[in-house]
Amino acid sequence: MTLLSHLNWRYATKKYDPAKKVPQPVLDDILEAVSLAPSSNGYQPYDVLVVTNPAIREKLRAAAFNQPQVTDASHLVVFAAWDSITEDNLGKVFDRMAEVRGSSESLAERRKSALAGFAGKTAEQNFQFAAQQAFIGLGFGLAAAAELKVDATPMGGFDAKAFDDILGLKELGLRSVVIMTLGYRDASGDWLVGLKKVRRPKADMFIEVK
Amino acid sequence: MTLLSHLNWRYATKKYDPAKKVPQPVLDDILEAVSLAPSSNGYQPYDVLVVTNPAIREKLRAAAFNQPQVTDASHLVVFAAWDSITEDNLGKVFDRMAEVRGSSESLAERRKSALAGFAGKTAEQNFQFAAQQAFIGLGFGLAAAAELKVDATPMGGFDAKAFDDILGLKELGLRSVVIMTLGYRDASGDWLVGLKKVRRPKADMFIEVK
Repeated sequence: MTLLSHLNWRYATKKYDPAKKVPQPVLDDILEAVSLAPSSNGYQPYDVLVVTNPAIREKLRAAAFNQPQVTDASHLVVFAAWDSITEDNLGKVFDRMAEVRGSSESLAERRKSALAGFAGKTAEQNFQFAAQQAFIGLGFGLAAAAELKVDATPMGGFDAKAFDDILGLKELGLRSVVIMTLGYRDASGDWLVGLKKVRRPKADMFIEVK
Repeated sequence: MTLLSHLNWRYATKKYDPAKKVPQPVLDDILEAVSLAPSSNGYQPYDVLVVTNPAIREKLRAAAFNQPQVTDASHLVVFAAWDSITEDNLGKVFDRMAEVRGSSESLAERRKSALAGFAGKTAEQNFQFAAQQAFIGLGFGLAAAAELKVDATPMGGFDAKAFDDILGLKELGLRSVVIMTLGYRDASGDWLVGLKKVRRPKADMFIEVK
């Protein structure tokens, strides 16, 4: 199985070579994998920002405990979940379903009942639901990067509120959830690259219910 | 890129052939991919139940809107996040880190500060954090299944509280988050298999910040 060897190859890169850029077609494949990630009912309730602007990335780095990956990696990808789920954003997804598969009465019914369901919950509950879906997209993006031998670092250590302000996410109805840097490792300066991967023992993490 | 073709092949299987079982070595590879999924700080704050017991799966199906995948797929995988993060569960992860990479003062410091950090948050906040990590594991599991041509269905439509009761998760300090069925499609009886994949337009979902 080749995917397993790719997943064993990857690690949370701590030091990137700032001179090496991920070529556009390679980046496109990684984003395509993110787009192919499944989500609850196919809603894909999150947007994905690909940040290359150096000045903005300097500001984001300051809001991410000054972690150098934020500026030194080739690309910074920010997963931002919908801060609420309404006709404005979810409606477009249903429009898309109708466009691709044809409209139907049952689709119209599902749309109505989905929107009613979300309206009956708090914005925070809906945001948490949306954020969870973004993590599936992150998983697919990381797996694709590994296959393409692109180094990637998933990062949760940042001030989400500050990221939202710097990127103007509130105006877009979004809140940042998790980030992923993409690029190529500078193995000589990376303290983590030589260390053994640590994982919980299988017998501890996996439970058989026979 | 082969992963993309696998990801295009997969779909949320609605009807499984109950006679076809996923061989143990293939299942092991899928679970290995889940185990290799990264998580915040390497904590892996969730357990994974692999349910084959037919009587239990009948009960779970009743708690999942009677969706037939729950009983008809070869295996039912339940991702269950830690319901709180304490010395009891996180401590073991730090023990494991020390075992694999050697103990150090800095590791002991990180352990102390991590536990203090989680203690300063509500159990619900910590559970949400843990649940998000489980979705990365789900993503890796789905990607691995696709490569192995094992059909898989990620499912959020179930009564989590009922699942917790049936599986005795509370006693284990766990709460069910998302499930994944694994097996082989019965294409003749699956309404979804022939339908086009729907995804949001790239221009809508991806935002370049140049």
